[in-house]
Amino acid sequence: MVKKNKKKNCALLIIGNEILSGRTQDKNISFLALWLNTNLGIKIDEVRVIPDVEKKIIKSVLDLSNKYNYVLTTGGIGPTHDDITAKSISKAFKKKYTYNIEAFNILKKYYGNEFDDPRKKMAKMPSGSKLIYNPSSAAPGFMIKNVICLPGVPLILKSMVHNLKKYLSPGVKIFSSSVRCQTVESKIAKEVGAIQKKHNKFVEIGSYPFFRLGKIGVSIVMRSSKKYNLQSCHKDIINFIKSKKIKIYKGM
Amino acid sequence: MVKKNKKKNCALLIIGNEILSGRTQDKNISFLALWLNTNLGIKIDEVRVIPDVEKKIIKSVLDLSNKYNYVLTTGGIGPTHDDITAKSISKAFKKKYTYNIEAFNILKKYYGNEFDDPRKKMAKMPSGSKLIYNPSSAAPGFMIKNVICLPGVPLILKSMVHNLKKYLSPGVKIFSSSVRCQTVESKIAKEVGAIQKKHNKFVEIGSYPFFRLGKIGVSIVMRSSKKYNLQSCHKDIINFIKSKKIKIYKGM
Repeated sequence: MVKKNKKKNCALLIIGNEILSGRTQDKNISFLALWLNTNLGIKIDEVRVIPDVEKKIIKSVLDLSNKYNYVLTTGGIGPTHDDITAKSISKAFKKKYTYNIEAFNILKKYYGNEFDDPRKKMAKMPSGSKLIYNPSSAAPGFMIKNVICLPGVPLILKSMVHNLKKYLSPGVKIFSSSVRCQTVESKIAKEVGAIQKKHNKFVEIGSYPFFRLGKIGVSIVMRSSKKYNLQSCHKDIINFIKSKKIKIYKGM
Repeated sequence: MVKKNKKKNCALLIIGNEILSGRTQDKNISFLALWLNTNLGIKIDEVRVIPDVEKKIIKSVLDLSNKYNYVLTTGGIGPTHDDITAKSISKAFKKKYTYNIEAFNILKKYYGNEFDDPRKKMAKMPSGSKLIYNPSSAAPGFMIKNVICLPGVPLILKSMVHNLKKYLSPGVKIFSSSVRCQTVESKIAKEVGAIQKKHNKFVEIGSYPFFRLGKIGVSIVMRSSKKYNLQSCHKDIINFIKSKKIKIYKGM
């Protein structure tokens, strides 16, 4: 059941053997997470990466679409034999897997005399889908129920996301701030834990060690939908770090 | 139920708000996928990314540990308030969350006089765990049942993986080969589909468009546990590409 509250969440389903084999480094998770939050206040609550296997696509889509407001899938909507996302999702929702007339016409115009069968396949999708236009390579993504299917190639995906906006109802934007300081986690863990407790209702604090440019440190990251509470928590963190005489890194 | 065959599979559970928020770009999926296949013939069949939330950790760990030979988790085993992986997994398996004596002694020796409470927390884990030694920052990972818990920081994780080997029973190594050519997917989709059909039993062919250094192209990637079948499929692909007079990129 989709939760009926202001906080919009979604899941990301990455469909592709190339990610699971390690051949391709995923870049879509962080891009989509930042874009969805900045533009629509939608939060990714879960990501799954699965192979191009019909049964697994069907099971994951049904499972995630029941749990979250939206499901975004990436990958598997091209012209080749291993692109089975559209067909699998048709089966998942018991929809006809058929030509979308508008998509067919877009691709026909784009390819002209070279509109062959593999290209025609890119116009096939679950009956009743809405299109997500693709300004870079024509072949559209689609939305059926609360599931949105996008391509896996990051460049193409990026060019399409602004065409998603009209289909997604905005949630509450999450603001974040961070403090990077020259220390190790265990030296600040207790006090940061206490500050988290104080601000538990509205702010979520994360602590991340890093090693960069020969420097070690910790990033303390605060996230909240309430600007005021975020600032108040940020102030508490800064005061604590200064009280310990720990160096704060700037401009990193 | 864990499958009883030679093919060893595993799932990867990435625990961390910083990945879901987009703040941090995951690097562990592709590293672990390549390392597990090359060194142990173990295949990642599914990845999930979930937040640092106890309920979700428990549910995902139980779900995945039932389905796969192994589950590797990353993240959430440090000293701060948001590091709750060890505690959550103790609850999942109904084990006591307690000090591991060996881990305690390793950390005590490493930190000397600075062995404070947050650092002591890193020695707490499900009772009965086996340790995975950490040559870079001492705090060990652990294995309980078929679940292996590693840190999220890629540099530290990389330094620890060879200490995993003794706990994992090897599977069948998957070999791969690829052909990169100057074309678009739709021009080769039909024939590559037919070649896939011919080699269906032993080879899996993937087709991936790319744009790189101003060049467009398609990578045709073949994967198989059988070297002979892989070579035979590779030959069929090369012959087909040459018959179409499509340029093959070398050294990319």
